[in-house]
Formats: sequence, C-alpha cells, structure tokens
Amino acid sequence: MEDHLTLCDIGNTTYHFLREGVESREAADTFDPGQVEEDVYYISVNAAVERRLKALPNWHDLRNCIDWEQYYETMGVDRIVACEAIEEGLIIDAGSAITVDLVSAGRFEGGFIYPGLDAMQESYRNISPRLDYSLNFELDLDKMPKNSRDAISYGLLRTLFSEVMRHERPIYLTGGNAKVLSKIFPDATVDELLLFKGMKKMMEKRC
Amino acid sequence: MEDHLTLCDIGNTTYHFLREGVESREAADTFDPGQVEEDVYYISVNAAVERRLKALPNWHDLRNCIDWEQYYETMGVDRIVACEAIEEGLIIDAGSAITVDLVSAGRFEGGFIYPGLDAMQESYRNISPRLDYSLNFELDLDKMPKNSRDAISYGLLRTLFSEVMRHERPIYLTGGNAKVLSKIFPDATVDELLLFKGMKKMMEKRC
Repeated sequence: MEDHLTLCDIGNTTYHFLREGVESREAADTFDPGQVEEDVYYISVNAAVERRLKALPNWHDLRNCIDWEQYYETMGVDRIVACEAIEEGLIIDAGSAITVDLVSAGRFEGGFIYPGLDAMQESYRNISPRLDYSLNFELDLDKMPKNSRDAISYGLLRTLFSEVMRHERPIYLTGGNAKVLSKIFPDATVDELLLFKGMKKMMEKRC
Repeated sequence: MEDHLTLCDIGNTTYHFLREGVESREAADTFDPGQVEEDVYYISVNAAVERRLKALPNWHDLRNCIDWEQYYETMGVDRIVACEAIEEGLIIDAGSAITVDLVSAGRFEGGFIYPGLDAMQESYRNISPRLDYSLNFELDLDKMPKNSRDAISYGLLRTLFSEVMRHERPIYLTGGNAKVLSKIFPDATVDELLLFKGMKKMMEKRC
C-alpha cells in the first residue's frame, strides 16, 4: 500500500502534503521544493512550480497515471484526481477556484469552474468599494435579500447552490474552503483528503 | 410629460443619457458634467461623480423622489429605479455588476448582486492564466461541460441562470450587457431604457 508515500497536491497558491497520514500546507510562491529529501508523488495545476519540479528527480508527476480517455486535455489534474476518488456524486473543490465535477458510475460526466470565495469577494470590491462586504454564510437561502451584505453573499453562494442542488446527487466537499462552504451544503460529505484518496487509487490502478 | 427632460443614469463606469428619446453614453472617469447646460435629472451609484454633481445647480438628484419605505438604505439607486419601472417580474441589470431584483404586485421583494461579465472574466484570469478564456454564449446549458472554455462559461452563466429560472417570473434585461445575456435568457424582454422608464414614473408619482 501507498500509505508510507509522501503525496502532494499543488494548487495555484498552496502545496498540500500528506505524509504518514498527516497533512501540511506550504505557500506556493515561497516554499522551496528542493528542500524535500524523500520521494514525493505529486499533482500540480501550477505551471511555475511545475517548471521547477522537472529538475528535481525525487518529485514524481502523477499526470502520467491518468486515464486520458475519460478526461480532456486542459482539465486541471486536481479535478481529475478528485473524480478518481469517488464512484457517484458531485465534487466541489473549493480553493482559489471552485470546481464542480460530476461522476456517475465511476465515470467523469463533465464539470464547471466558478471563482473561489476570495476571488469573488475581490471581484465585488473591484467593481465598487460599496460592494466590499464580508460574506454571510448564515444567510437565508430561501429569501431574496433586502440588505447589501446578504445581496452579495446570496449572489455568490445562492447561484452556485441553485446549480449544484439541481443535479440531486451526493455532494463531496474538499479544498481549503470546504468547511466554510459546508454551512451552505449541510448534507455534503467534507473530505479534505479526497484528492489524496484519488491519487492513491490512481497509483494502484495504473502506475 | 417628462419626455422633453434630459435624464441620466450614472453607473460605476458610464454616464447613460436620454435626451428627446435618444440615448448616449459617456465614460464616467473622463466626462465633464459641467459642460452640460440644460437641466439634468439623474440617479447615480458612483460616489466620485456624485461629489462633483453636488456643485452643479442644473444636475438634480432623483434620490429624493424614492419611496424609502419599500427599499433599504444601501440599495443602489439604479436597482430601485428599475424596480419602479415594472409591476411584476425579475429584473436583470447587467453592467459592471449584475443585479437581479424581484418585483411582485408593484413591490420590491428582494434581490441580489452578481459580478458583471467583465469582472467575472477578470476574476478567472487572476486566479490563473490557464483560466483566461472568452465566454461561449452558445454553450449547451443542459450539459455539464467537457472543455475549459465551456467549464468557465457554464460556471459564470449557468449558476446565474439556475438561480434566475428557479423563480419562474417574467424576466426583464437591461444594462450594457443586456443583449449579450439575452442569448442565455431568450424569453426575457430586453429593454435598455428600463431605468429611464422607472425614473419618469417616479417623477410623475413623487416629485
């Protein structure tokens, strides 16, 4: 089994490690991958980091283990690996982007990309300082808002919620904002190790 | 009747004029409102512009004509005026922000704010250069996407669409991006003069 391996999921802003069942995170722009001595099996959506890793022989790209017949070429490897982890359901990976992917009978059936919570808030702020509010995760999703903070929280969260719920599937939440989003999706399974599970499964099957 | 009046709707980026039934637009950051000689009846959500207009005696703020019992204090005046224009339905005002407001039996029933099309695209681009795509307004909204351009277009458009359609109301589209959004909402009534209609109605009733 691969439980002794060091796994790493590299996003736009973060290295997310799993070593002997223990998670840790490092900032993508400051962490030096050359300081890691053991073998690391990784996936990455971060082009700048990937260029550095190519020169490090102990960093192994799991991209080569992907069954590309099921996925499309420009699809983020993190989304692919998440899909490999489940047999049935909708995966919401809430990081700097929020990706939503549908898996039916173990097969990827399509998915979409929504900006992450921080990116959305920045987007409101850039439109007008009058739209600069903290998000209200306790808002009533069944009532059109009558105040500014909820009008923005609803705009960001209810639109995503309406589309996700339409599919009537079990929901899996992962990524740095999984916990906070679970306030909106109380029936979802929060699994911050979902991508690592997908990585392990993929390695067992194909690498 | 007020048809001979000069009306102006000032947004975050644009002055939108109606003079004798003819529309024109000026950029908010470069246009000099002091060069207008006739009386102008305006609404504005742009704080910087408002400060300048206070010093110009021929610019008349319609904010004072609003029935504030129906609306909330920080609600954009443009949204209020749009609500005044209709008796029943959902108004989508697609400008630098996209506001969606519900009116039932002539009363405002709440609404939300979504980032505008440009702001959303910038948001994707800022997350990663790999998410920098032009939008596909011809995408199939009934199918989860299997390519990057559609994954982003769907993320932006389908989420908004799912929430809007859930209300099962007549839809009115206005604002600079009304026409392009009507590709997604083919049954909507596009009315680029909707806010001016609301302004006129409000002036007749209360000013």
